[in-house]
Amino acid sequence: MRSSAMRDMMAITARPEIISLAGGLPDTSTFPVSAFTEEMARIASGKVPEVLQYGPTEGSELVREQITRVMKAEDMLVDVADVTVTTGGQQAIDLITKVLIDPGDVLICDAPTYPGALPTFYSYEADIIQIECDADGMRMDILESTIASLAEQGRKPKFIYSVPTFQNPGGVTLSLERRKRLVQIARENEILIVEDNPYGLLRYEGETLPTLYALDGGAYVVYLGTFSKILSAGLRIGWVVAPPPIREKVVLGKGASDLCTSTLTQDFAGHYFDKGHWREYVEDLIGIYRNRRDAMTGAMSEYFPHGATWNKPEGGLFIWATMPDVLDTSDMLAKAIGKGVAFVPGTSAYVDGRGASSMRLNFSGVREDEIIEGIRRIGAVAREQLDLYETMTGSQEMKLPPLDADGNPERPS
Amino acid sequence: MRSSAMRDMMAITARPEIISLAGGLPDTSTFPVSAFTEEMARIASGKVPEVLQYGPTEGSELVREQITRVMKAEDMLVDVADVTVTTGGQQAIDLITKVLIDPGDVLICDAPTYPGALPTFYSYEADIIQIECDADGMRMDILESTIASLAEQGRKPKFIYSVPTFQNPGGVTLSLERRKRLVQIARENEILIVEDNPYGLLRYEGETLPTLYALDGGAYVVYLGTFSKILSAGLRIGWVVAPPPIREKVVLGKGASDLCTSTLTQDFAGHYFDKGHWREYVEDLIGIYRNRRDAMTGAMSEYFPHGATWNKPEGGLFIWATMPDVLDTSDMLAKAIGKGVAFVPGTSAYVDGRGASSMRLNFSGVREDEIIEGIRRIGAVAREQLDLYETMTGSQEMKLPPLDADGNPERPS
Repeated sequence: MRSSAMRDMMAITARPEIISLAGGLPDTSTFPVSAFTEEMARIASGKVPEVLQYGPTEGSELVREQITRVMKAEDMLVDVADVTVTTGGQQAIDLITKVLIDPGDVLICDAPTYPGALPTFYSYEADIIQIECDADGMRMDILESTIASLAEQGRKPKFIYSVPTFQNPGGVTLSLERRKRLVQIARENEILIVEDNPYGLLRYEGETLPTLYALDGGAYVVYLGTFSKILSAGLRIGWVVAPPPIREKVVLGKGASDLCTSTLTQDFAGHYFDKGHWREYVEDLIGIYRNRRDAMTGAMSEYFPHGATWNKPEGGLFIWATMPDVLDTSDMLAKAIGKGVAFVPGTSAYVDGRGASSMRLNFSGVREDEIIEGIRRIGAVAREQLDLYETMTGSQEMKLPPLDADGNPERPS
Repeated sequence: MRSSAMRDMMAITARPEIISLAGGLPDTSTFPVSAFTEEMARIASGKVPEVLQYGPTEGSELVREQITRVMKAEDMLVDVADVTVTTGGQQAIDLITKVLIDPGDVLICDAPTYPGALPTFYSYEADIIQIECDADGMRMDILESTIASLAEQGRKPKFIYSVPTFQNPGGVTLSLERRKRLVQIARENEILIVEDNPYGLLRYEGETLPTLYALDGGAYVVYLGTFSKILSAGLRIGWVVAPPPIREKVVLGKGASDLCTSTLTQDFAGHYFDKGHWREYVEDLIGIYRNRRDAMTGAMSEYFPHGATWNKPEGGLFIWATMPDVLDTSDMLAKAIGKGVAFVPGTSAYVDGRGASSMRLNFSGVREDEIIEGIRRIGAVAREQLDLYETMTGSQEMKLPPLDADGNPERPS
C-alpha cells in the first residue's frame, strides 16, 4: 500500500464510527489526572517563561537523566551524554536514517517491518533488504547469507534495523540465542544495529530477555526509545542513544529538522519520571493490554475462518494474522471499513508486495467489547470473500461452515 | 562557521554568565501565567486522555483554524485544508526543502540568509545561490540576471527562499515595489517562492506591507509561519501553507519525520488563540522589543568603533552590524565570549565565506541594561582588535580615540 493511500486509510479509521484495530495507539484513558495537574501546577508557579522558551537541541538535562533511568529498568547502562531527545520515536528513526544513509546504501530490516519506518527509509533512498522472521524473530541464517552475498558484490549494509521485542507488526520476539548471534554478526562484520524498542517494558508474560544494547554495551548497537507507549504519545518524546561520532551528527540533524523538542512536554515528562511512580502506571497498562490481547485472540479463535493463523505475543501492541492465501487483505480492508472496522494490510510492512494475505491488528487502543466486535466483523468479511471465491472457482477444497444472519459461522449445536 | 562549531558556540552562549545577543530567543517573561493556568485547568477537567494521545499528521482542526485567523491578521485568506501544522518553523523549512529539493537542485535565497536554514538546505544537497540584499531587501535586478543565466545553462531554481519582512539576519524589509516584482518574476518564470514570515506581526514603526502570499494569493507562494515569536517557541508549533499537490507531499514528509506535532501543545495553542486575547500579548511584546531595539542602536552609536555600520530595523528581532573590514567577527567572537558576550558571526549567514566583518545581534531575548553592557563589551573587543591591527601594520589611516581603563573610548570633555 502506498503511503498516501495508507494515510487516507488512517484518516478514515480515525472516524468515531469505525472500530480501528489499525493504529498503534496506547490507551490514555487511565492516566492519573492528578499527575497531570501536579506537574502543570508546578510549572504555573514560576516556570512558565522557561517552558515557553527554546531548549537545548539535544534535549533537557533532566529528561536525558530520566531516560537513562528508564533504560536502567531494562538493564541498560547509558551515559547521559550519549542520549539525544527526539520528537517521538519516529524522529529517532528519521534522524538515524538521515545520518547513516546516502542514496542507494543498503539497509537491512525485519520482514515484516514497522510500516511507519518504510516511508522514512524511502525518503533517504535506502536500498531496503528485508530478512524473513519466524516465531523467534529475524532468521539469523538468512541474515548471514545475505550479508555474505552482499559482500561478494562489494556491498555492506549501513545498518540492521529491528524491533527485536514484541515486534511491530509481527508481535514476535527475537530469541536469546538469536540476540547473541545478531550482536556477534554485527561485531564480526562491523555493521551497526539500530534497535528500536518502544514496547520492551510492556511484557504480559514470559521471561524478560536482554536488549541488544545490553548484550553489546553500545559499541555496535544504536538504541531508539520512546515515552509514547509508557507515558504518552501526545508529548512526542523519544530518543537516540549513540556513540559520540554518530551522536554529534544526530544532534546536528535534529537542529536542522526542528531545532529542539517541546520544552513544555519535556519539562512535564522529566518531572513525571523523576517522581518515580511511572512503573505503577506501566503496570496498569500491562494489566489492561493483557486482557485486550486475550480478548483479541479469543475472538479470533471464534470468528476467523479455518485456515487463518495468528500468534499470541508475550507483550507489545500487535498481533499479526494471516488469512487463507486466496484472500487479499487490501481488498478486504475496503469491505471491512464498510462494516465499521479497520486494520493495517500486511503489504504495508514489506517493500515487495509480500504480506498480501496478512494483517496487523492492534489490541491496545480499543476496549475489549470493541475488539471482539471488530474481530467478528473482520471474520465476517473473510468468510464472505471466501464464499465468493468458492462460488467463482467452484472450489470445494475449503469446507467452511455456513454463516448465520449476523455473518457468524453457524456452529454445530 | 561550520554548523557543529555554531552549535558549540550556541551551547557556550547558553551559560548564564554570558550576555547572549546570539540566539533568536523571544522574551517569555511577561506571558500571562493566568492564560497558562486557564488552559491547563481546562485540559485537566476531562481532556487529559486526548492530549496524551497521537493526533492527525496534518495537525488538529482547531489549530489549523486558528492559523488561518492569525494569517487573516496579516490580510491573508487561507483555506484550512491548505494548512499543515509543523514542529516549529524549522520543521516547516525542513519539510518544504525535503519535498522540493533533489540533490544538486538550485535553490535561491537572500544574502545574508537565515543561518539556521543553511544546514537544512545542505542536508538535502541543494545548490544554494544567494542574492545580495540592500536596505530594501533582495535585489530584484540580480535575481533576474541570475535566473536568466541559469536558464542559459538549462537550469531553473526549485524555489526562492526569503524572509521578506524584518529579515533574519539582516533586519531589512523587502520594499513594496520589490514584493510586487518578486511575485511577478515567480509567475513569469514559474518558480515557487517560499516566504518565511516569523516576525511580520512584530512591527515597531512604519507602514505594514502586504506579504508575498497576500500579493500572489498562494499560486506561486508557499508560506511558512510559526507561533514561536507571537506565543511561544517551547510549544514547537509552526506551519506550511501550500497548494494541494505540495501539501500532500508535505504531510507525507511530516508523517515520516515525526508522525505528528505534540497534541498537548497544539491543544494549548489552539484554545489560547481561540480566546482572542493574543493580539494584546503581541502588543506587549512590541513595546518591549521596540525599547530593546532602541537601547541596542543607542549603545552601538556610543560604543561601536568609527567605520562600523548597522541598520535600525522597523520590526523583528535582529540587527545586522558590519565592522571595519580589517576585523573578522569570528576571531572577535572568541574574545567576546571571554568578556562575557556573544553574537552570531556574519559568515554563518553565507555559503561562501562572505560576511566576515559582520555580525547578527539579537535584541529580543535580553534586558535593556544587558543589551547596553553587551554592546559596550563588543565595542571594546573591536577597539582592541583595531589597535592591534594598527600596531602590527603601523597604519595611521584610522584615527581612533584612545580607550580608558574600562575599555571605553575616551571622549573629548
